[in-house]
Amino acid sequence: MNFKKVLGDNRVKPYLFKARYGVEKESKRVDLSGELAKTDHPKSISQRDDHPYIQRDFSELQMEIITPVTETLEELFNYLAAIHDVAYRSMGKNEMLWPLSMPPGLPEKEENIVIAKLKSVEDVQYREYLSDSYGRRKQMLCGVHFNFEFGEDFIQALFNAQSDIKDYRDFKTEIYLKATRNYLHYRWLFTYFYGASPSSEKNFFKEDSLHDAVRSIRSSKYGYTNSEDVQVSYSSIQNYLYDLTSMVQKGLLSKEKEFYSPVRLRGGKHVSELADHGIKYIELRNIDLNPFEPYGISYEQAEFLHLFLIYSLWKDEGENCDEWVKLGDSYNDVVALEHPLEHTKFKKEAKDIIDEMEHLVNLLDLPNSGTLFINLREMLTNPSKTLAGRLYKESEKSSQSKVATYIAKENYKKSWEKPYQLSGFTDMELSTQILMFDAIQQGIKVEVLDRQEQFLKLQLNDHVEYVKNGNMTSKDSYISTLIMENKTVTKKILQQHGFRVPEGEEFQTIEQALRSYDLFSAKPFVVKPKTTNYGLGISIFKEGANYEDYQKAITLAFKEDSSILIEEFIKGTEYRFFVLDEKVYAVLLRIPANVKGDSKHTIRELVMQKNLDPLRGRDHRTPLESIQLGELENLMLKSQGYRMDSIPEKDKIIYLRENSNISTGGDSIDVTNQIPEDYKKIAVDAVAALGVKICGIDLIIEDLNAPATNNNAYGIIEANFNPSMYMHVYPYQGESRRLTMHIIHYLFPELLQNQ
Amino acid sequence: MNFKKVLGDNRVKPYLFKARYGVEKESKRVDLSGELAKTDHPKSISQRDDHPYIQRDFSELQMEIITPVTETLEELFNYLAAIHDVAYRSMGKNEMLWPLSMPPGLPEKEENIVIAKLKSVEDVQYREYLSDSYGRRKQMLCGVHFNFEFGEDFIQALFNAQSDIKDYRDFKTEIYLKATRNYLHYRWLFTYFYGASPSSEKNFFKEDSLHDAVRSIRSSKYGYTNSEDVQVSYSSIQNYLYDLTSMVQKGLLSKEKEFYSPVRLRGGKHVSELADHGIKYIELRNIDLNPFEPYGISYEQAEFLHLFLIYSLWKDEGENCDEWVKLGDSYNDVVALEHPLEHTKFKKEAKDIIDEMEHLVNLLDLPNSGTLFINLREMLTNPSKTLAGRLYKESEKSSQSKVATYIAKENYKKSWEKPYQLSGFTDMELSTQILMFDAIQQGIKVEVLDRQEQFLKLQLNDHVEYVKNGNMTSKDSYISTLIMENKTVTKKILQQHGFRVPEGEEFQTIEQALRSYDLFSAKPFVVKPKTTNYGLGISIFKEGANYEDYQKAITLAFKEDSSILIEEFIKGTEYRFFVLDEKVYAVLLRIPANVKGDSKHTIRELVMQKNLDPLRGRDHRTPLESIQLGELENLMLKSQGYRMDSIPEKDKIIYLRENSNISTGGDSIDVTNQIPEDYKKIAVDAVAALGVKICGIDLIIEDLNAPATNNNAYGIIEANFNPSMYMHVYPYQGESRRLTMHIIHYLFPELLQNQ
Repeated sequence: MNFKKVLGDNRVKPYLFKARYGVEKESKRVDLSGELAKTDHPKSISQRDDHPYIQRDFSELQMEIITPVTETLEELFNYLAAIHDVAYRSMGKNEMLWPLSMPPGLPEKEENIVIAKLKSVEDVQYREYLSDSYGRRKQMLCGVHFNFEFGEDFIQALFNAQSDIKDYRDFKTEIYLKATRNYLHYRWLFTYFYGASPSSEKNFFKEDSLHDAVRSIRSSKYGYTNSEDVQVSYSSIQNYLYDLTSMVQKGLLSKEKEFYSPVRLRGGKHVSELADHGIKYIELRNIDLNPFEPYGISYEQAEFLHLFLIYSLWKDEGENCDEWVKLGDSYNDVVALEHPLEHTKFKKEAKDIIDEMEHLVNLLDLPNSGTLFINLREMLTNPSKTLAGRLYKESEKSSQSKVATYIAKENYKKSWEKPYQLSGFTDMELSTQILMFDAIQQGIKVEVLDRQEQFLKLQLNDHVEYVKNGNMTSKDSYISTLIMENKTVTKKILQQHGFRVPEGEEFQTIEQALRSYDLFSAKPFVVKPKTTNYGLGISIFKEGANYEDYQKAITLAFKEDSSILIEEFIKGTEYRFFVLDEKVYAVLLRIPANVKGDSKHTIRELVMQKNLDPLRGRDHRTPLESIQLGELENLMLKSQGYRMDSIPEKDKIIYLRENSNISTGGDSIDVTNQIPEDYKKIAVDAVAALGVKICGIDLIIEDLNAPATNNNAYGIIEANFNPSMYMHVYPYQGESRRLTMHIIHYLFPELLQNQ
Repeated sequence: MNFKKVLGDNRVKPYLFKARYGVEKESKRVDLSGELAKTDHPKSISQRDDHPYIQRDFSELQMEIITPVTETLEELFNYLAAIHDVAYRSMGKNEMLWPLSMPPGLPEKEENIVIAKLKSVEDVQYREYLSDSYGRRKQMLCGVHFNFEFGEDFIQALFNAQSDIKDYRDFKTEIYLKATRNYLHYRWLFTYFYGASPSSEKNFFKEDSLHDAVRSIRSSKYGYTNSEDVQVSYSSIQNYLYDLTSMVQKGLLSKEKEFYSPVRLRGGKHVSELADHGIKYIELRNIDLNPFEPYGISYEQAEFLHLFLIYSLWKDEGENCDEWVKLGDSYNDVVALEHPLEHTKFKKEAKDIIDEMEHLVNLLDLPNSGTLFINLREMLTNPSKTLAGRLYKESEKSSQSKVATYIAKENYKKSWEKPYQLSGFTDMELSTQILMFDAIQQGIKVEVLDRQEQFLKLQLNDHVEYVKNGNMTSKDSYISTLIMENKTVTKKILQQHGFRVPEGEEFQTIEQALRSYDLFSAKPFVVKPKTTNYGLGISIFKEGANYEDYQKAITLAFKEDSSILIEEFIKGTEYRFFVLDEKVYAVLLRIPANVKGDSKHTIRELVMQKNLDPLRGRDHRTPLESIQLGELENLMLKSQGYRMDSIPEKDKIIYLRENSNISTGGDSIDVTNQIPEDYKKIAVDAVAALGVKICGIDLIIEDLNAPATNNNAYGIIEANFNPSMYMHVYPYQGESRRLTMHIIHYLFPELLQNQ
């Protein structure tokens, strides 16, 4: 088959860069000084052996980060980032991840490398077998496995563009086999650029096998390889399977999965599926951890791999394919064992391949990040720009181990900088980010169905739950949220159930509302639009109002909505109760933007100091908002007799806003433990009356010490069907309430049963 | 206590016209010729004895219409109208309601008046006792009972404005007692204006007791009264109860409820509650059916009654209150037995009272419908304008019975004119109106929580369900409706479950979308905004598109939403499946606005003829919309070679629109029985995959005869969380599917269990 022609077919073009990706990335847990951790796998991570995102590899301290299958590289790296955040923060503040494929100094006694304490007896036995066959030291090598699947549409288009192979499955298999053979043949190129295991640390080799630094110990014959007798053909899927089976029968391999080829053909989870369904995807295994990337592999590397595979498909191969692959092994061994700073023996061939790859990009109109070819050429010209070269040069200044420890620390710091964020998904709402964090930690599969809309699919085994905005779930009924959305209906129902709500009326016309002046004029009351939020169009009259002001307020409210409410104003302090499944999990007090005087600094300075808190930021990307110094704040200060440059006396609280919204710099204070049980019961019962399971209900309470049964002890202001959770999880003051985890446990009660 | 002063207090003013109302209205079922019906109470109405809206009175053919308690007269009349609609349409097309208090001709043998076939043995026995004591003929008198409660705020304000009575309950009782005593004293005035039972028909009196017409047989001593020995004092609640109890003990009454006073004091459902809780409201019982009003009482009469009660509260009463009430009885008997066309003996007193009432309206700034006093004065000057006078004069031309039959027929016609509407609530959505109809019929209490928002509370015994828009209920989860609202998420989930949906992608920017031109250019596809509806911003390319048109379509779609979808276009016919609780209840085919030629009429004439169908109208107030003859229709005709004045040949179908929306004059055709089971199963399974209970799901099917398992046999276009139901209930062609009743039974399964 003429691959060059088929790939250039116009019908193939739209699908050329469609693919699916997945990464498994192993690394070792170390303490903050870079010594191997002696602790168990973090308890906060679900301990299931089949955790979809974070597992243990050979050793208890080897953490394996597994991404789901994604359809874009962006998404792949989002998951890599997110799962790393979860891994870091689950380990706690005393541990970090070692950024190198090569382990740090190993214990003298191999037995002190602890085998992963898995639940599956079979899995533990297999590790014991590996320990016996290869030694535990070699198992401490870490790397990245890159799973790659050509887009189904792409293969289909290729298939339609040719007529040599009639059977679609045969065709698909041939596609993967050809790409694999050429990949194996040319993989020395990858080793040159991205090999990154130049030196070993103490006790890795029993005797000092390597005297000088190389490009990649891991990819060389000193790395993690089968015995030389293990030879498998890639000429056809039948031969591949036959050889594998023979190796196992001969006892050269304990199982098929012990076959440590740089490329593994995959039909599914088990080798048997290969025979049944053909090749589904391939697993590239010859990738050293990239020390300079927090997730062990760079986006550009992944781009290179994809392009390199298309190149491998396009490029003609040698007549004898077994020979062709074997040649590749020998070339790779040469390059892997070259000194990191020396030019490669195959410099000319490398240049030709790069030129051809670039030609291909132009020919097929492939997307191109722009810097890839510049960087490749620079690395080719200057070996110290390759990963091995860079690591080697950095290490010359101190030591490889010190460099690795420094890098690990930087990654660690970055992961802890904004603990409320989930890297890779920071454009989503904070509550959703925190919920995703908890789900990943609990081993629940997280799929983002609609990113802009905060729409998630969560899955634990066969149990699927869809969640929007972190707390819109299958547990609440449609009608109960519609009830909450409608203030009039909410009030009527609460009133019918005997709860105190502000008395008042709804009006559809200005005239109607004006006619009811007498009903409100003499008491404290509020005029507000029926459905808008954010305080727009609301007027509060704490002492009643004259007719003119009443009229103005009504006109204002009608600008925001076609229906308005006029209600009695209830005095007291407003608390937000977060109720979940008939229990109050958090109560929050919100107070207006403020600073506390110290008799030294101006208000401006105090505001700037307070804004340094990493919890504060802009545009709801942080749990608290920065305090502004705008017109409204100036007015507020003025009304209290201050200016921006005033220096308030020690401990004097200066308010910069009248409203207590978090969005205008207000403080969130957790007061869950201070709220008496009887008020919590009011909240729970009111939420139950509305038929709601997840609700943020706002109560105004005049005096927490007075019993809730007192006449007018409280008033219910609103029930929110989309209460923000992050403000409870990361309050300005008081205890953090991990509501997101409660939601997860509410949606997946089996998590608690299985513990 | 000085009632005049207290009522004039400024603090009382805002609450003066606050009250609660309720009406019970009895009437007899008759056939279309005005003969008493011989049928049982309609089977379509829930047969429960305690039906909240429609019960039987003494006889099986006496229908009692009961409104809920309302806070405005508007609402009261809305319910009266609605329940009458239900009553009429439940009786079927062969019966109507007799509009007079006096029965039509009665059977010679009293036993042929059938006692109501109630389930309660006690209730049947009581009717048998009444039959023995008063005779069945007298039980055939019908009337209106008007229940009236002063607003709690009003009584509270009155209470606060005085200091004579210290106990609130005593005060409240005194308010009602005074109003009642004066009402009884002056009720002759009401009898003069609104008495409406001038003559009896055959067999009502055993012998001819009355020789000439009067104002009100029913309110006179010939009406429905206790024996003269039954005397009860209204001087205090203690005396009232003591007298009542004595009457029962003496055997003059069988139970307290046999006391047929023109005003009954009410403490709740049973007399005993009067003793425990004091007076809660009063029941005015001296109201003849107003023959000229479809609901037996006019809005103005109700206004008069409210004003008359405030007047009764304001007006000084006689020293001896028992004497005062007795005087009222004798005055009333005089007026009731006056000839309908003669001036009343108390004309001067009547004029004074009207003047005083008008003075009171001005003094207290009460609302005033404007025509009330004009009408009262006209009736006083000209007795032929009173109800009795009008009926008498009309009857002189033919006979009272003919007049009544004519009126009954007019009411009957009106109720059947637009069977899809529910009178009193015609501003609400059609589906909600139909659902309310069904709920009322089934004896489910219906409360409108928010009229503009179509928000209902339905209640059967202790079981409450809230419903919005007729099909948003507690049965669906919040998340499943959010899934349906999001086209991208809906598609992903359906796809993951193996259903065929149009393939395509979502784009957030014009550039992204343009870059994917190659993916779509060569096949049929649709460009559409992600969330808007009503067809805005949608472009369909049935044969692919050139780049320029592609670009235009994308720009158009982005005008409607910040995200757009580009999807393959699936060929075939679109069907709407209505799925409820895993069953398909209706399938609808919608076809574009069209007329069928007859070789005689022009297209314009054919459209006008088709638009005469009462199912067609404007602005979604009818199940179908009128076909327009605008620019688009003209263009469409032109493209087929027609003009408005063309006369199409017989049976030729001429389309006036390309789109099949009902809102642009399209036809709805029920095809439920024509759809093969396998496609219904697809619809049911897809809805289940989305976790939805109530859903309108749109399938495109290319060939109904091809099995659904065929490759690309169908495509799912959309799942609607608010599918309109009325179009299935009143289709243009095909069987009516009463989806609203299925919803009711789904929400209240106990309705079926109890049958």
